[in-house]
Amino acid sequence: MEERQILEAIRNRQSARSFSSGRVADGAVRRILDAARHAPSGANRQPWHMVVVKDARVKRDIRELCEEAERHHHECVAGDIRAWYAAHGISAEKPFLEQAPVLIATFVDPQAPYAIPSIWIAITHMLLQAAEEGLYSLPYTPSGARLAPLLGVPAPYRITAVLPIGEADAPVRQPRRPLSAIASLNRFGTPFPEG
Amino acid sequence: MEERQILEAIRNRQSARSFSSGRVADGAVRRILDAARHAPSGANRQPWHMVVVKDARVKRDIRELCEEAERHHHECVAGDIRAWYAAHGISAEKPFLEQAPVLIATFVDPQAPYAIPSIWIAITHMLLQAAEEGLYSLPYTPSGARLAPLLGVPAPYRITAVLPIGEADAPVRQPRRPLSAIASLNRFGTPFPEG
Repeated sequence: MEERQILEAIRNRQSARSFSSGRVADGAVRRILDAARHAPSGANRQPWHMVVVKDARVKRDIRELCEEAERHHHECVAGDIRAWYAAHGISAEKPFLEQAPVLIATFVDPQAPYAIPSIWIAITHMLLQAAEEGLYSLPYTPSGARLAPLLGVPAPYRITAVLPIGEADAPVRQPRRPLSAIASLNRFGTPFPEG
Repeated sequence: MEERQILEAIRNRQSARSFSSGRVADGAVRRILDAARHAPSGANRQPWHMVVVKDARVKRDIRELCEEAERHHHECVAGDIRAWYAAHGISAEKPFLEQAPVLIATFVDPQAPYAIPSIWIAITHMLLQAAEEGLYSLPYTPSGARLAPLLGVPAPYRITAVLPIGEADAPVRQPRRPLSAIASLNRFGTPFPEG
């Protein structure tokens, strides 16, 4: 059935933090960007700019700035998140920023109406289109890294996420809570029928 | 080709602000919720709860609270957004909150890591799945409306968006900026090749 195709893609999509060196075709990148381009946005402002980075030297510079910001973040992070990071092998090291053949650095104009919802809708479109291309990705948010000056992106744009795009071994699937735990009917606590 | 299916859905999806009274099947709602359920989230916290509202009285209460908050918002909004609202017939009146057969009130735990990105990824999954079901929707953000107490949703959950879901006449398509205006290669200003 037609309406199951997107749900299948959504169910099968998984984030990767480790990429193989396989090439990513420009056509795939173009379709991923096109998915962002068609996102709805507050007052249709389309308040985004994506810098596709393939140059190894630029990727190395991005990694350096992000890891510097990450070291600060990891020092400050709360205990339970720190534990989750440890359990999943997540540290301030971000080798995927050099390893992935393509990075899409995604910038937003924070002064646009509903800027944050708009940019995350666009990012989600890119994550799903990457999955449809048979590629892996990750919505990596480099909190505080000064990527706009590095990539020549003018004010008022600010970095929101860097999406590494590439081939990967299928990562371990994270479990999800059941429908009964996340949805109610008419009022919190009345379960939506499981069907 | 397989990889075009999601892009087609993304290109064809349009927001609606006016709905017909046609029924929405529970199965469709369940798949829309399932699309949210499979969204990635910070530290896999899945920091969301969705209240599906079909009860006419509850929908009326939601509309009332939202319109009260909207009247305040419309008084305070900046001039250019005000002009966009006027040009698109958007006022503090939100009849779609009663008219749509189903509302999905989407709540987030703002204390979860990366709560806002996580909830907007989940909302985007629902918007796309609604489109796949042949239904229309809208990522409506009722800024300031106190919907958590109304729907019995406990702290720390906060309302993020209310998605009206239903059948609609195809709305006017909003134009999008070309790829060359929204994407660069390696550095801002170097256009990504159009292909």
